[in-house]
Amino acid sequence: MKVHRIAVDGMGGDYAPAVVVDGAVQAANDFDLEIILVGQEQALKRELSRHKVIGGRLSIHHASQVIDMGESPVVAVKKKKDSSLAVAVDLLKDKQVDAVVSAGNTGAAVAASTLNLGLLPGIKRPGILISLPTLRGISLAMDVGANIDPTPEHLFQYALMADIYSRTIYKKRHPTIGLLNIGEEESKGTDVMKETYKLLRESTINFIGNIEGRDFFTGKCDCIVCDGFVGNVVLKVTEGIIENLTGLIQKELSKNYLAQIGAWLMKPALMSVRRETNYEEAGGAQLLGINGVVIISHGASSSWAIRNAIKKAAHVIESDVNGYIVNEVTQREKNRQANPLPKSEDVTKK
Amino acid sequence: MKVHRIAVDGMGGDYAPAVVVDGAVQAANDFDLEIILVGQEQALKRELSRHKVIGGRLSIHHASQVIDMGESPVVAVKKKKDSSLAVAVDLLKDKQVDAVVSAGNTGAAVAASTLNLGLLPGIKRPGILISLPTLRGISLAMDVGANIDPTPEHLFQYALMADIYSRTIYKKRHPTIGLLNIGEEESKGTDVMKETYKLLRESTINFIGNIEGRDFFTGKCDCIVCDGFVGNVVLKVTEGIIENLTGLIQKELSKNYLAQIGAWLMKPALMSVRRETNYEEAGGAQLLGINGVVIISHGASSSWAIRNAIKKAAHVIESDVNGYIVNEVTQREKNRQANPLPKSEDVTKK
Repeated sequence: MKVHRIAVDGMGGDYAPAVVVDGAVQAANDFDLEIILVGQEQALKRELSRHKVIGGRLSIHHASQVIDMGESPVVAVKKKKDSSLAVAVDLLKDKQVDAVVSAGNTGAAVAASTLNLGLLPGIKRPGILISLPTLRGISLAMDVGANIDPTPEHLFQYALMADIYSRTIYKKRHPTIGLLNIGEEESKGTDVMKETYKLLRESTINFIGNIEGRDFFTGKCDCIVCDGFVGNVVLKVTEGIIENLTGLIQKELSKNYLAQIGAWLMKPALMSVRRETNYEEAGGAQLLGINGVVIISHGASSSWAIRNAIKKAAHVIESDVNGYIVNEVTQREKNRQANPLPKSEDVTKK
Repeated sequence: MKVHRIAVDGMGGDYAPAVVVDGAVQAANDFDLEIILVGQEQALKRELSRHKVIGGRLSIHHASQVIDMGESPVVAVKKKKDSSLAVAVDLLKDKQVDAVVSAGNTGAAVAASTLNLGLLPGIKRPGILISLPTLRGISLAMDVGANIDPTPEHLFQYALMADIYSRTIYKKRHPTIGLLNIGEEESKGTDVMKETYKLLRESTINFIGNIEGRDFFTGKCDCIVCDGFVGNVVLKVTEGIIENLTGLIQKELSKNYLAQIGAWLMKPALMSVRRETNYEEAGGAQLLGINGVVIISHGASSSWAIRNAIKKAAHVIESDVNGYIVNEVTQREKNRQANPLPKSEDVTKK
């Protein structure tokens, strides 16, 4: 079997290049992959010299510029043609690699990918899909920030893509799809939400209706479709809550010795909860709808998260998610031209 | 001093009437207020007979109908003229009471109040303001669900109202205002957000710029202005996370005896965190912008939360929040007619 080649944006992320190189080395040692670290050669070599790569294939591809986390995405992508991100995306465009992983500026990754790779045939807008740890395993949410003003058609296509992702990557046979809204009734929400509800209900997708924020992490459905503005805010609020709760508990513990012993005794249980709720296991988010495999990792990714994002990239290439998306969209377009959208089969409405 | 009269929707809430009556009795015993329980007389009497009201003033005002939590708000309000909610709002309109407290159907409370009481002069749309426990004390967020498709002008007025609320109720001298968005830069977000940013920056409001979801509970600013759709989803996601984490930790604890001892030792610290983060202390949300004082409590409110909501209602009456809002809006309208909006003094931009 062909070994997959994955370009890793060596300079992208809050702790780049150190943590990124560390994660890339772990991936090179753990998986049968060819990894190309893209970025400033000297900096990457310095980091690499601290590691042992045992049998893994790992090389450096020089790129002189760096896009910072705070830079305006479109401006940065247009000006910095030799940035690690832009060069990694160029490698993908030229088919010198099969996927790109970046923990850098998310907006820049979306802009560079969309501008240089283009969209998959039939897809109107790209979206970011994230794998969420929930009470019942992994759920997907899309979009979490690429498209902050989606039309019903965009949201409908996000549902299609998430459905395919759930079937190919997570082997769910009939993934359930929910629309994130402010109430369960069909009449709830903005006009965009009401129209999207109609499109989903009238399709053959396994649509369970609107879900509320309360169910974002319960795993009530396999895929949550949401507005990119709302999805982005929800993820950041979640991060903030976990940080704040941890901070508050630590403050209280510092006042109370017995409670510190208690915390020590609880540690295994808490670590287990942490593992179950750790997004780092799921391997980053993916920009779906573009003509290529681009994984967008969290800016604060640990080396373990980078390793898992690289593993995820290989999985997505192997599963040919993009091929299935193109097939599905083309097929639906043909059906729609032949006859109007098929009526829902009324499956598993909860 | 005149004793404030507060109508309590006796049938509103997931655990009504029992919990509501309990909370009303506590308030009647704790505060110098006149409380009118509105709802089905027999049911309310039965609940009341289980309690002692020591010196408090508490009476029942009969209303034959009940609006359920799941009912369509506008339909319910139009059809059920003798519901506990509608009758409570009518009492307020007729000046037989000074405020209404309801833990029932939020949409119905918004609809009944807006339709029957009308808006304050100059205010374009009502919004729900909530008091959030944060790392640095109470912050306010508005709107959390009354207006899911706000214009920049609506959001600007929410900032004005939250500012006044923060000054009158929480005695903050120069409350800081942040706009909930997907990035801190002025260029971020939808057109509505960009336009709102401009209005806020050009006003005399102490605007600190955009804030991200991560800062929703850090108390980075005194008042968070947000789209009602986003605000509603954020609150519900937050509830879901807390419930899920609690559930996960309990599951892990059940597997591990030492961890159970640990949890017991940690209890005082955890209870303290719980107190600091308990929304029930803050006394419910308020529907602002309408011509009257209406407090909307969480559907799952405990009797303690109901008691605090009644206390909050009295506080809002006494502080004449609505009077200040009318003054401020009228004054600004006059200024705007005399000359364009004054340029920002560039205060405390963080």
